[in-house]
Amino acid sequence: MKAIRGAFLDFLDDPFYRDEREAVRYLPDGLLVIDGERIADFGPYGALAERHAKAHITAYPGRLILPGFIDTHVHYPQTEMIAAFGEHLLEWLAKYTFPTELKFRDKAYARSVADLFLDLLLQNGTTTAQVFTTTFAQSVDAFFEACGARNICMVAGLTGIDRPGAAPPDYLDTADSFYADSKDLIARWHMKGRNKYAITPRFALGSTREQLDRCGQLKREHPDAWVNTHMSENQKEVAEVAELFPEAKDYLNVYERAGIVGPKFTAGHAIHINDDAFRRLSSSKSAISFCPTSNLYLGSGLFMIHKAKSVETPVRVGVGTDMGAGDSFSLFTVLNNGYKVAKLQGQKLSAFKGLYLATMGGAKALMLDNEIGSFDPGKYADIVVLNPHSTLHLSFRAENAIIDSTLSTANQSFEQLRHDAFGMMMLGDERSVDATYVSGELLHPKAPASC
Amino acid sequence: MKAIRGAFLDFLDDPFYRDEREAVRYLPDGLLVIDGERIADFGPYGALAERHAKAHITAYPGRLILPGFIDTHVHYPQTEMIAAFGEHLLEWLAKYTFPTELKFRDKAYARSVADLFLDLLLQNGTTTAQVFTTTFAQSVDAFFEACGARNICMVAGLTGIDRPGAAPPDYLDTADSFYADSKDLIARWHMKGRNKYAITPRFALGSTREQLDRCGQLKREHPDAWVNTHMSENQKEVAEVAELFPEAKDYLNVYERAGIVGPKFTAGHAIHINDDAFRRLSSSKSAISFCPTSNLYLGSGLFMIHKAKSVETPVRVGVGTDMGAGDSFSLFTVLNNGYKVAKLQGQKLSAFKGLYLATMGGAKALMLDNEIGSFDPGKYADIVVLNPHSTLHLSFRAENAIIDSTLSTANQSFEQLRHDAFGMMMLGDERSVDATYVSGELLHPKAPASC
Repeated sequence: MKAIRGAFLDFLDDPFYRDEREAVRYLPDGLLVIDGERIADFGPYGALAERHAKAHITAYPGRLILPGFIDTHVHYPQTEMIAAFGEHLLEWLAKYTFPTELKFRDKAYARSVADLFLDLLLQNGTTTAQVFTTTFAQSVDAFFEACGARNICMVAGLTGIDRPGAAPPDYLDTADSFYADSKDLIARWHMKGRNKYAITPRFALGSTREQLDRCGQLKREHPDAWVNTHMSENQKEVAEVAELFPEAKDYLNVYERAGIVGPKFTAGHAIHINDDAFRRLSSSKSAISFCPTSNLYLGSGLFMIHKAKSVETPVRVGVGTDMGAGDSFSLFTVLNNGYKVAKLQGQKLSAFKGLYLATMGGAKALMLDNEIGSFDPGKYADIVVLNPHSTLHLSFRAENAIIDSTLSTANQSFEQLRHDAFGMMMLGDERSVDATYVSGELLHPKAPASC
Repeated sequence: MKAIRGAFLDFLDDPFYRDEREAVRYLPDGLLVIDGERIADFGPYGALAERHAKAHITAYPGRLILPGFIDTHVHYPQTEMIAAFGEHLLEWLAKYTFPTELKFRDKAYARSVADLFLDLLLQNGTTTAQVFTTTFAQSVDAFFEACGARNICMVAGLTGIDRPGAAPPDYLDTADSFYADSKDLIARWHMKGRNKYAITPRFALGSTREQLDRCGQLKREHPDAWVNTHMSENQKEVAEVAELFPEAKDYLNVYERAGIVGPKFTAGHAIHINDDAFRRLSSSKSAISFCPTSNLYLGSGLFMIHKAKSVETPVRVGVGTDMGAGDSFSLFTVLNNGYKVAKLQGQKLSAFKGLYLATMGGAKALMLDNEIGSFDPGKYADIVVLNPHSTLHLSFRAENAIIDSTLSTANQSFEQLRHDAFGMMMLGDERSVDATYVSGELLHPKAPASC
């Protein structure tokens, strides 16, 4: 048995709906005991130390330990094309994305990028992601093989696009080939090790009615599979979808008619949707992936987080880097941009709300909160060790926090935590990540300080 | 004599108004010769090497060398309060800013922060900035003393705010004390060494008519002084200014009536202004500082860069971090956010346009292009050495650039430059800065790689 000692932060409840002090679980000196892949015990060091006297303890003084981050929307084949210049969604897809993704017919190339992609996720403290691939089955095989080598929990699937004109002819699949390949891939990968399979029509604009119906069929045949797609990202896209699917009352309804909306369904973006769609996403227990870096980068628009996290129509929301349309693998950068998207709409995204979205919120969005998202014993030991003072500027800022000195010591310490957490959310990046554990194993150590 | 060898990039013209290939000066293998504080010679290595055979040459292979960055709007006393949570401008000022700036009555404290501030600028490749201080003359003295110790070119001045209620009583100055202190400070610091003085009414909301008139008087008495202020940042601020100055037709007109608008006048932000104000800023040769990180962070709004850089009403524009309302000292982060602000409005801010704003654009905005902003001999040797591949991800992105192979070798090399420059603008930060030279001296070296 091994154990980690330090300051731990996770969430007992959703801070969007509950007082933050009650939603946050903060152990300034905690012990997390790991048995194999999973968390065996968790609590204050003082209370647990004696019981685990034989555990090998790694201590992280001055650090803040969180559940591994969860990126609910990201494209691994776009790793090399991050920051492609100048276009909105549809032009960006045609000019940069499809030419790049065509390279993933080559399985060896796909594997090499999958390995780099996972290294970059781990460098940024991300231990689970919901991942788009390409229309090529070998790009899915390569990805899950890379995941297996790390025993890491990823949700991914063959990413279908069969509508003539929606992509270059040699990128397209067909409704039938998509169905057959997906069946094979589900048999090969779904629930094997920590792998999870997502039926993945890329977006309504890229799929024929037949392909979407095949997705519905796959979901009926594999009800425990995930469904991952894009929705209402860009106004031109929304208008074109309305033309192609006149029978659907809105973009969401295209997916509803295909029978894929419900728990384990994630709509990426959902920027241009109305109250009725929020209501239906809420009542169907669907999820939205909020991708602010991407939404700003492509000029797609401002996601209404206050509507998605309203009392009236609460929707499961996670955050997504949407790399390569997003310009960072860091969920800190995503939350920084999320703060700005909210602020432009007069809203305040606090550090605890942000960190909730990046951990337990993402786990709940993906219906994976039974195995990841917090430090509850029995969950996988997916853990990120953060340095809130990783730069000279963050460190100076932390020293100069204005904390009300009339508060109790415990409350002053909590206010310092709030201050440091917000600093990290706004100014942090992969340098804030000191260590990342996956299934109990340290997969991203910093290089030793001495040489 | 010493010299720097490497790939150099600066601007011969404004890429907003001219083909980028013609506006950019790119020397893949150049030599920049330094004599004391200034650039003595500059050109292709092959053409200059023989003439400067005795110069001590430092080579930067694989790096990109630019004129030092120019931050046209930043608050040094806010270094410690970066990323203060949750508020729009006026509430943010009351809750965080004035309490922090009150500390700058203490000159020793002010000096310690000024030193850190300048170190952080240099770490980010910024060699000139236009800087706000506080109402306390000692905060200006401390700042210019710190600048003198580095022989660095900064534009700064006493930052007046005398309107009762606009700040805490012990933060306020008076029209008379502001005038008298400014006179003293101008005599002490203006044009001493590389210091430049800016008459600095904080913003119209903070100044009485009398204080603004005193600013006009100072400008008449010291016509070569700069004038630096804020304008039309926030809608509530704009509405309150309209109420306080009913005689003025708009926010800009408040400053026009005080006699401070014209060359060497910079309006920070200028988000909520109309076409007529753009026209008057253009015809008066005034400047705007575009501060996108701040404008997003405080939720102030989207600056219309396409109007400021239009053919009809061309305005001198520089970029500003506006730290501590901006959330970074890096002009790369500022340009990243500037790209997003432009994109949300359907505009495309290219890497060369961005880098122009951060160098020659800033120099022209501040009317300092006679001494900084490019590599023309005679200018100060203020130089930044950049590593376009400073992270694993940037490096992988660079290797995989899709470059048209039918282009000539020179054109392929230029397209790779365009690709790398945009990558750095969008994904770069202080890690992209390998070295910063000020007045010919290396002030920010990286720590040695070996130990």
